[in-house]
Amino acid sequence: MTKNTTASVGLVRTQFFTFGHKPEAMVLDSGVALSPVTLAYETYGALNADRSNAVLICHALTGDAHVAGYHSDEDKPGWWEDYVGPGKPIDTDRYFVICSNVLGSCMGSSGPASLNPATGGYWGLDFPLVTIADMVRAQRELLRHLGIEHLLAVIGGSLGGMQALQWAASYPDMMDGVLALATTSRHSPQAIAFNEVARQSIMSDPHWNGGDYYDAQRPDLGLAVARMIGHITYLSDESMHVKFGRELRHGGGFAFNFETEFQVESYLHHQGKKFVERFDANAFLYVTKAADYFDLDLTNSDSPARQALGRTKARFLLVSFTSDWLYPTYQSRQVVEVLKQLGRDATFCEITAAWGHDAFLLPGTHLETAIGGFLGGLHAR
Amino acid sequence: MTKNTTASVGLVRTQFFTFGHKPEAMVLDSGVALSPVTLAYETYGALNADRSNAVLICHALTGDAHVAGYHSDEDKPGWWEDYVGPGKPIDTDRYFVICSNVLGSCMGSSGPASLNPATGGYWGLDFPLVTIADMVRAQRELLRHLGIEHLLAVIGGSLGGMQALQWAASYPDMMDGVLALATTSRHSPQAIAFNEVARQSIMSDPHWNGGDYYDAQRPDLGLAVARMIGHITYLSDESMHVKFGRELRHGGGFAFNFETEFQVESYLHHQGKKFVERFDANAFLYVTKAADYFDLDLTNSDSPARQALGRTKARFLLVSFTSDWLYPTYQSRQVVEVLKQLGRDATFCEITAAWGHDAFLLPGTHLETAIGGFLGGLHAR
Repeated sequence: MTKNTTASVGLVRTQFFTFGHKPEAMVLDSGVALSPVTLAYETYGALNADRSNAVLICHALTGDAHVAGYHSDEDKPGWWEDYVGPGKPIDTDRYFVICSNVLGSCMGSSGPASLNPATGGYWGLDFPLVTIADMVRAQRELLRHLGIEHLLAVIGGSLGGMQALQWAASYPDMMDGVLALATTSRHSPQAIAFNEVARQSIMSDPHWNGGDYYDAQRPDLGLAVARMIGHITYLSDESMHVKFGRELRHGGGFAFNFETEFQVESYLHHQGKKFVERFDANAFLYVTKAADYFDLDLTNSDSPARQALGRTKARFLLVSFTSDWLYPTYQSRQVVEVLKQLGRDATFCEITAAWGHDAFLLPGTHLETAIGGFLGGLHAR
Repeated sequence: MTKNTTASVGLVRTQFFTFGHKPEAMVLDSGVALSPVTLAYETYGALNADRSNAVLICHALTGDAHVAGYHSDEDKPGWWEDYVGPGKPIDTDRYFVICSNVLGSCMGSSGPASLNPATGGYWGLDFPLVTIADMVRAQRELLRHLGIEHLLAVIGGSLGGMQALQWAASYPDMMDGVLALATTSRHSPQAIAFNEVARQSIMSDPHWNGGDYYDAQRPDLGLAVARMIGHITYLSDESMHVKFGRELRHGGGFAFNFETEFQVESYLHHQGKKFVERFDANAFLYVTKAADYFDLDLTNSDSPARQALGRTKARFLLVSFTSDWLYPTYQSRQVVEVLKQLGRDATFCEITAAWGHDAFLLPGTHLETAIGGFLGGLHAR
């Protein structure tokens, strides 16, 4: 291998698990029975003899199962390579790490871009809508398949953090720790608004065609705009000043036309273009809708989630970032306040970072220390 | 009249002024000569004998000349009816108030939706791009036509505030006061990013057709998404919580489909639909681009704008709103700091408001007092 993999899990491959064959279809929150269900997943490290070192990582909105390592010599590494690997905060020498692509997505798991066994064609919008709880329920089946009945920790950022919190609400006895980064227990109207405008952009593209485009031209333009909208929310006013300022792509004054002119425009176009090459427009509708539906209703003393959190023995660490305006600090703080009211072992950590919501994906000493310390503490317990 | 117009200017009508007939074409910042140029404008109140009571109001991104009063008994009032009228903060019993639609827009002034005299067809993208300074230069011609060589004040919010600041930079000896609300002297990369994604949404609509759609179907879907993006930036996280929360349009749980489900979605759709009925997609490209180009470069001691501000005798009032994240407080504060360094008479006022950027358009005692007091002070001087 030409790559320096001293601190990497090295070459890995995505695996697939299928469950819910009839008559044991998976019943979703919507009441719809889905059958069968496939999850794409990867694992790193080794499960120890007493099966006590399993760590589940949940990915963000458009992520995938490929957290760390390389699929080939030429490939770029997994999306959390900085945090997952030998000797890294999520240390694959100590922990057995699992990550699966969420239900409803398009990176190997069942979703609208999968084939519908009933028709032989693509699901498209006939695929049932899913919730974060559905995603977690499917992950539970994967763990059963892997012989794991207890997790050292569930970890995730953004939509992954919602899944981590949902894990504690759905299976409060199944984990020692919950680590939720840059996330919320209740998707805000502003976050819903951004998602909805992104969805409208996709659905306004004539190539979207009611979600039926798999044998034709894809709604790339609508999806690119949707991604660009999202990308603005992942950065911050401050990071944009540092990263782009008002710099022009080509020096020498304004062009006075509608071509790409500012560096920040060029960056967004690039993000849009890259995204349409890897992600399915319908799947984007499904995962954003799952986020919008997410509300653990923790301030309501009768909510099932609050009651479940009241009896879990798991430790919690919630981390927010000062410049994250998509899921701002006050939203993490609310979760921690409820956990404290319930007498749980909950720690809150706000990290000063200029990079906005995306900060949890970027290398950062404070986050590395927080994650490593939290997992180490659980492991020692 | 059935309407209560005791505190209204009552029935008004839009007027039109055309200048720049060849060979006296208007030369724009781009170097292009535009001829002729029409501005739509309205006036309220009466110019006094010594012509010292003229107040110019500059409108925001997609506003128009119709600031106050009614065009007919059935119409809704002008966009700043709460602030402009007899006995109101901008008191039409005392001041002669002028507002014109900006150059490049589509509410009566020359822009891409106007006819190109050279071809007899619509300008479309052949219309030259304009800057805030161009808009102000055209307003200067209108004032000349009205016989006004001095302004008591220039007032504007958002893009109107940029024009007010540009007025001081372009014609530093022409006014006693400058009142700039919820604005900036330098369009930030984040604000450029939002504008660019909105433009991409329009240009991705196949009906946009390179800007040539006036005799065909219009790019309504792209323009509606563009407006929805903008609308999110006009509100705030806080105001969305208060206004919509996570309320559903129809009670009784989630629909599990992609129809309009949350109230906030419904609101955005409504805003998008209303907007395409009144605004032209190409004009939206032009006015957003003018905003993006705006940079008075005040921190640079050699900039012409800074030098002009250094010699103006005008008083300044800059007002920001706590929850405005499109043009946040720090951006107004920077302008005031420069003005203070230059020894100018500049006041800064940050108003606590939950309503985000839109706060300057809404009734508010603090803003009413600030505007009324500032104008009264100038008038007394």
